[in-house]
Amino acid sequence: MSLRILSRFHHISSSLLRNPVQFVEPLNLVKQFASSSNPEPVITWGSKKKHRKVRLHSLVGTKIIMTAEVEAVLAPLREKVQEQGNLVRSLKASGAPELDIKKAVAELKTRKKALEDKELEFTSQSSTFDRAKMEDLLKRRFFYDQSFAIYGGITGQYDFGPMGCALKSNILSLWRQFFVLEEQMLEVDCSILTPEQVLKASGHVDRFADFMVKDLKNGECFRLDHLIKNFLEKLASEKSSTPAVKAECEDIVIKLDGMSKDEMGAILRKYDMKSPVTNNDLSDPMEFNLMFSTQIGPTGLVKGFLRPETAQGIFVNFKRLLEFNTGKLPFAAAQIGNSFRNEISPRSGLIRVREFTMAEIEHFCDPNMKEHPKFEDVKDTPMTLYSACNQMDGKSPSQLTIGEAVKSGLVANETLGYYMARIHKFLTTVGIKFECLRFRQHMNNEMAHYACDCWDAECLTSYGWVECVGCADRSAYDLNQHMNATGVRLVAEKRLPEPKTVNVSEVVPNKQTLGKTFKKDAKTITDALAKLSISDVESVEKVLGEDGDYTLSVNGSEFKLNKDTITVRHSTKTLHVEEIIPSVIEPSFGIGRILYSLLEQNFNSREGDEQRCYLSLPPVIAPLKCSILPLSNNPDFTPFVKKLSSSLTKDEISHKVDDSSGSIGRRYARTDEIAIPYGITVDFDTLKEPHSVTLRERDSMKQVRVPLAEVSDMVRQLSLGRNSWENVLQKYPLFEQQEASAK
Amino acid sequence: MSLRILSRFHHISSSLLRNPVQFVEPLNLVKQFASSSNPEPVITWGSKKKHRKVRLHSLVGTKIIMTAEVEAVLAPLREKVQEQGNLVRSLKASGAPELDIKKAVAELKTRKKALEDKELEFTSQSSTFDRAKMEDLLKRRFFYDQSFAIYGGITGQYDFGPMGCALKSNILSLWRQFFVLEEQMLEVDCSILTPEQVLKASGHVDRFADFMVKDLKNGECFRLDHLIKNFLEKLASEKSSTPAVKAECEDIVIKLDGMSKDEMGAILRKYDMKSPVTNNDLSDPMEFNLMFSTQIGPTGLVKGFLRPETAQGIFVNFKRLLEFNTGKLPFAAAQIGNSFRNEISPRSGLIRVREFTMAEIEHFCDPNMKEHPKFEDVKDTPMTLYSACNQMDGKSPSQLTIGEAVKSGLVANETLGYYMARIHKFLTTVGIKFECLRFRQHMNNEMAHYACDCWDAECLTSYGWVECVGCADRSAYDLNQHMNATGVRLVAEKRLPEPKTVNVSEVVPNKQTLGKTFKKDAKTITDALAKLSISDVESVEKVLGEDGDYTLSVNGSEFKLNKDTITVRHSTKTLHVEEIIPSVIEPSFGIGRILYSLLEQNFNSREGDEQRCYLSLPPVIAPLKCSILPLSNNPDFTPFVKKLSSSLTKDEISHKVDDSSGSIGRRYARTDEIAIPYGITVDFDTLKEPHSVTLRERDSMKQVRVPLAEVSDMVRQLSLGRNSWENVLQKYPLFEQQEASAK
Repeated sequence: MSLRILSRFHHISSSLLRNPVQFVEPLNLVKQFASSSNPEPVITWGSKKKHRKVRLHSLVGTKIIMTAEVEAVLAPLREKVQEQGNLVRSLKASGAPELDIKKAVAELKTRKKALEDKELEFTSQSSTFDRAKMEDLLKRRFFYDQSFAIYGGITGQYDFGPMGCALKSNILSLWRQFFVLEEQMLEVDCSILTPEQVLKASGHVDRFADFMVKDLKNGECFRLDHLIKNFLEKLASEKSSTPAVKAECEDIVIKLDGMSKDEMGAILRKYDMKSPVTNNDLSDPMEFNLMFSTQIGPTGLVKGFLRPETAQGIFVNFKRLLEFNTGKLPFAAAQIGNSFRNEISPRSGLIRVREFTMAEIEHFCDPNMKEHPKFEDVKDTPMTLYSACNQMDGKSPSQLTIGEAVKSGLVANETLGYYMARIHKFLTTVGIKFECLRFRQHMNNEMAHYACDCWDAECLTSYGWVECVGCADRSAYDLNQHMNATGVRLVAEKRLPEPKTVNVSEVVPNKQTLGKTFKKDAKTITDALAKLSISDVESVEKVLGEDGDYTLSVNGSEFKLNKDTITVRHSTKTLHVEEIIPSVIEPSFGIGRILYSLLEQNFNSREGDEQRCYLSLPPVIAPLKCSILPLSNNPDFTPFVKKLSSSLTKDEISHKVDDSSGSIGRRYARTDEIAIPYGITVDFDTLKEPHSVTLRERDSMKQVRVPLAEVSDMVRQLSLGRNSWENVLQKYPLFEQQEASAK
Repeated sequence: MSLRILSRFHHISSSLLRNPVQFVEPLNLVKQFASSSNPEPVITWGSKKKHRKVRLHSLVGTKIIMTAEVEAVLAPLREKVQEQGNLVRSLKASGAPELDIKKAVAELKTRKKALEDKELEFTSQSSTFDRAKMEDLLKRRFFYDQSFAIYGGITGQYDFGPMGCALKSNILSLWRQFFVLEEQMLEVDCSILTPEQVLKASGHVDRFADFMVKDLKNGECFRLDHLIKNFLEKLASEKSSTPAVKAECEDIVIKLDGMSKDEMGAILRKYDMKSPVTNNDLSDPMEFNLMFSTQIGPTGLVKGFLRPETAQGIFVNFKRLLEFNTGKLPFAAAQIGNSFRNEISPRSGLIRVREFTMAEIEHFCDPNMKEHPKFEDVKDTPMTLYSACNQMDGKSPSQLTIGEAVKSGLVANETLGYYMARIHKFLTTVGIKFECLRFRQHMNNEMAHYACDCWDAECLTSYGWVECVGCADRSAYDLNQHMNATGVRLVAEKRLPEPKTVNVSEVVPNKQTLGKTFKKDAKTITDALAKLSISDVESVEKVLGEDGDYTLSVNGSEFKLNKDTITVRHSTKTLHVEEIIPSVIEPSFGIGRILYSLLEQNFNSREGDEQRCYLSLPPVIAPLKCSILPLSNNPDFTPFVKKLSSSLTKDEISHKVDDSSGSIGRRYARTDEIAIPYGITVDFDTLKEPHSVTLRERDSMKQVRVPLAEVSDMVRQLSLGRNSWENVLQKYPLFEQQEASAK
C-alpha cells in the first residue's frame, strides 16, 4: 500500500496512517463550480495563461558555484536548519510528547524550505522555461488535452492524443521489458472496482481523506489547510496587523501540518473566516474521502470504490502468486493500471489528476534476507542522494554510488538499493536528465511504525522537485492488515536450518462416539477443536479434569463434550519449516508524472530561433521513430516513398509520411515538434542508381547519404538503441546541403 | 457508440435505441447476496462444479455430413424458418405495425434456434469438452481467477495472473501492431470517468438498462425477463397444466423480447409470480441502468459514470483528431481501455463481466466514399458469412471471399468489408480456428434508422457462438448526437469538385448605432443575429418591412431593432468546400471474450493420456516463448542455463527456467500446460564441444539438436513467426530420445 505515493508527495509523512488528514500543498485556492452545463470550470492551460514564463530553478544543474559571497548568505540559513534538526533529534531521543516533535518537525521543514529557495536562487538562472509555450505545443500536436472539452471539460482529467498515447505506451513497454521481463516478475492485471472491506483493511476507507469546508450558500468547497494558510498569510502581510498578530499567524501556519479537525475548526472560528470568493459563511470542517465510491450489483447494498492505487490487487493475490512461484521467496509481482483519486481541486496539469496510470512492484522477501543477487551488477551506479540527515542538517544532496550508500547503511538494504539503482537507470533511459533527478529519503520515516526506509525519486520541473517514483521498504505491514481482516494466512514457509522439536497440546475428537452423539454437528465440533489455541486446550484439560465435561460454543450453539468424545493429547512434533510473513519492498511509478517531467526536460528551442521548438525525446520512447519526406510533389518520388513506408511497417517502425507541400525545412520543423528522431528524405538523387536517400537526426540536424536498401534497418537499429548516430556519422558521407538552402 | 456490442450480443437488435430494455439472455436465474462479510456469492468455477462436461457442439467443423436421413429431419425445420422469414418480409414490406413485426421476428428467432440446435446435433459429436478441467488448469496456473477471493469475492470480476496477464498483453501488442501501426491509425487514451451529459447525449443514461424486480423482504434482485421465462417454462412443463395454459406460456415467452415494462408487469401479476428463491413477494418492475455511477469532485453535485464503452472518448475528441490529420478524411482512431457494466447477475466466466478491456476503432469517412484503397489486398480472403437472408431462410452460413461479398452487395461497402477481412486475419492469427469463426449479419439491421450494415465476428465455444468483435457502419449517428448536445460542429470540410455559387440572406448589424443604443448588449445581439436561420431572416425582413421594427428575444431579454440598427442583406457567395458529417465504421473488440474463446479452442489433451492437457496457443501470443530445462541438478549445467537465460533476455524473449527436480517429461508437461511453445534442454552432450542443446516443440513434441550459439536467435525467429518449425525440422538433426525414456 502506498497512501503517500503519487498523491501528496512532499507533504504526507509516513506517519499518515496514524495522523491522517495533514496534507499541505503549496498551491493557491481555486474555485469549483457545479452546474449542469459546465460541471467544473475549464482550468486554462496553454497560451491563454497570464503568466507564460516560469523561472526555471535549475534544469542545467543543481550544483551551486560556491563563492564566499554566496556562502555568507547561505551559512546562517544552514545553521538555523541544523539547530532545529538537532532539536528534533533530541526531542525524539528523550521520548518527548508526539505533538512537541511534530511542531519541531514543522518548523524544521519551514527552515529547510527557506534554505532551499535561497540555494535555488544562486543556481543557474540564465534560462527561463516557457511552460505555456510547451503546453501550446502539447495541445496543438495533441499529446494530451483536457477531457470532454466540448462539454465544458472536467478538471483533473486528460485525454492522450496520438502522440501522447504512443509516448505513454512506449514508456510502459520499456517498463515491462526493463522490470517484468528482465527481472522475471509476475505481472498481474487486477480489478479496478474494489469492495469496501478490502480498502477498509488497507486503511483507505478511514484515513485516505482531506479536510474541507463548504460555502454555506453556494456549496463551493475549499481544502481547509489551503484556506487557513492563505487567510493567515494575507493577514500577516497586512500593514495594520500588530507584531503579535503576525507572530501568531506564522506560528499557526507552521503547526498546521499536524493539526486535527477540531484544532483547525477552532482557528476557522477564531478568525471568523469566510469564503475567499463570495465572503459567505463556511460550514464546519468535514473529512472528504478521496476515493470515488459506487455500488456494485443491483441491490445498492454492496459499496465499492475505484481503487486509489494498484498495490492492493497484488496483496490480495499474494497466496496465488506465492503458489505460482512454487512457494519460494523472494519474488516480485508487478502491475500496470489506472487508479483514481477524487481530488478536491486538481491542478498542475498531469502532476495532480483524478485518473492516472501507475506501475507498481511488490517485492516479497524474507525479512531477514534482504540481500540481492544482482546488487553486484548495479553497485557502481552513481546517484544523487538527499538523505534525511542532510535534510536535517541543511546540507545539499550528495553524489555517491548506491554501493557506498548501502555499505554505509544510508540505504537500508541491498534489495532497496538494487531497486533504487534500477529506477535510476529506467528514468535516465526514458529521458530524465541525470542532473535533474535525485532520490530524497523520507525525513520522518523513523516515525512510521512499519516502514524501514523510503526514498522518493524526484524529477526537477518548473513545478519544483516532483516525486515520480516512490521506493519503500514497507516490512510486513500490508500483508498483516489483510491477514487480520480475512483470517487467511498470508505467509510463506521457510525451511529451518535444522529441524526443531516443539511440544504440541491438542484436543483430539473420538470420531466414533462424537459422530454417534452429535450426528451432523460432529464436523462442526471437529473443526472448532482444531482451531483451539494452546491456552484454550489448557482450559479444556482443566475443566474436563475438574467437571468431567466441557461445553464448547460454536457460532452460538453449545455442545457438551466429555471424556468419551474427546481426549487431550500432549506430544512433540518435529518441524522442518517455519511460517514467515514476507517483507514488502515497493517501487511505485507515477507514469503521468514521469511523462510530464521528461517532456519538460526535453523541451528545447533551436539556437537563434526561439520560436522553433523541438522535443529531444530518446528514440526508444519517441512516439514515432521516423518520417519520410519526398522533397517535392514530383510523382517519381511516390513509389520510393511507398516502398520505404511498407519496409518500415514490416520492421515494426512507427513512422509518418509527410508529402504535404511545405518546404523541407518547414516539414522537418513539424516533425521535430513531435520528437521524431530520424527523417528520411527522398530527393532527385534517390531516382538515380544506386538509389540512396538522406537520413537526418533531429537533435544535431546533421544528415548523411545512405543507400536506400540499408536505411530501414538502420533506423530500426538506431531506434532500438543498438546503433548510435555517432557511428552512422562515421560510416556514411555527410549530406552537406543545409536545411535552409532546401527551403 | 456501440450499445449492443459486448453487452448482450445476440439479443439486442439494432433497434435498441428505439426500443430499450428488451434483452433476453439464455441463462438461468442466480441469486445475489449482499452482506458486509461476503458482498456477493462466490460463483464456483473449476472442479467444484457439478456438471463438468459440456457437450461440445462443434469445435471440429460446422459442416454437416448430409445424409438423406439427416435431411429428412432438417427439412421441415428449414421450411418453418423460411415460412416465418417470408412472413416477416411481407409484414415489413406492407408497413405493418411495429408490434406485429416484432412478434413475427421473435417467432422467427425461436424457429431458427430449433433448427440450429438440431443441426448441431448432427455435427461431429465425438468429442466432449471438459470445461471444468480447463478452468481448473486456468486457476491452478493462474491465468485468471476471481477477484478479491480472500474477501469472499465479487461476481463478474476477474484478476489476471502472470500467465493471463502476459497472454492479454501479447494480444493487445499484436492488435496495436496489426491495426494502429499497420493502418497508421490515431491511437488515443481517454478518461474512464465520464460526466453525465456525454452519456446522456449518447443515449446510455436513458436507455442502457435492464428491467428487474426485487424480493420485497430481503432485497434480492432478479432480471425480469429471466424470471418470467423460467416461471412460464416450468409451468408449461407441469403435468397439471392444460394445453391452453401451455400454449399461452409459450406464446408469452416468444413475445417477451419486445415487451414493455408495463406488459411484463402485467404478466408478473397475472401469474402472481414470487421470488423463486424465497417465495417472497416481488416489487413492481423497475429499470436498472447498467452504468456504475459516482460523483466527480467534492460537491457531490457533478454526476459521473464509469464509461460503458471506449468509443465515446473518440467521438468527443473528433475535432482534435481531424485537426491532427490536417483536416483530411478518411482516418481511423483507435483506443484500448477498460469499460464497466453493472450487470444484474454476471455469469459465464469471462464472457459476461462487470469490468472488461475493449479495443475499438472508429473509422471516419466521407459518407459517399466508402471505397478502401487496400481492399484489393484482402479481397480474396475466404470467410464464413451468415447473412441476414440465410438466417431468415433457415439456411446455413456460406463460405465466400470478402471480395465476392462486397461485389454482390451482401456486405455494404469496401471499407466495412476491409475491416471484416482484417478482423478475420487478426482472430485467426491469435489462435481462433477458421472453422470456429463466422461473421453473422445483424438480422434486424433494417430496423435501425441509422446503421447501414452490421456484422458480428462470432467464435464457437462451449457457451455456443459468442460475439467477440462487432463491425458496424453506424453512419453519422454518433457525431450527430454530440453535435446536437454541445452545439459544436463535428464536421469535416470537403473540397467541392467545382466552386458553387449560393444565395446568402443575412441580417447585418449597424455596429455604430447598435453599440450606441444597446451598449454592452450589442455583442449579445450581434451573436444572436449571426445564428439566425434562413427562415428567421425572411421573417425579420417581413416584420421589419411591415412594422418598421423587429423584437429580438435572446435568453429571455427582448431587444427592439429597427432599420437604423440592422439591415437585411442579400448576396451571393462562392463556396469551394462543403461541410460533411463523416460516417463512422466501427470495429469493436471484446478482448476478454477473444481470450476466453482462444483458450477453449486451443485446449487439448495428449492422445492416449487424457489427464495430460496442453494449450496450443500460437507462439506470437503465448505468455512465455521458451523454457530452459537442465536435465538434472548437475552443477555443470548451471553456467549454460544462466548464459542461455541472459541471452534470451537480451533478445527480449520471455522465458522460464525450470530447474526443479522433476523428471524432464514431467517438467515438459508443466510447460505445455502454460502453452510454452519451445523448450531448450541442457544435457550431458551440452557440456561437450561443440556445445549443443535440444529444442522441443510443444504441439508435435518433436526435438532437434541445435548448436548452443544458434538456439536463442532461432527461438526468437520462431516466436515472431519469421521461421517455421517445419523449416527447423528440415535443417537440424532430430533428437530421437523419447520423453518417456528420459523420465
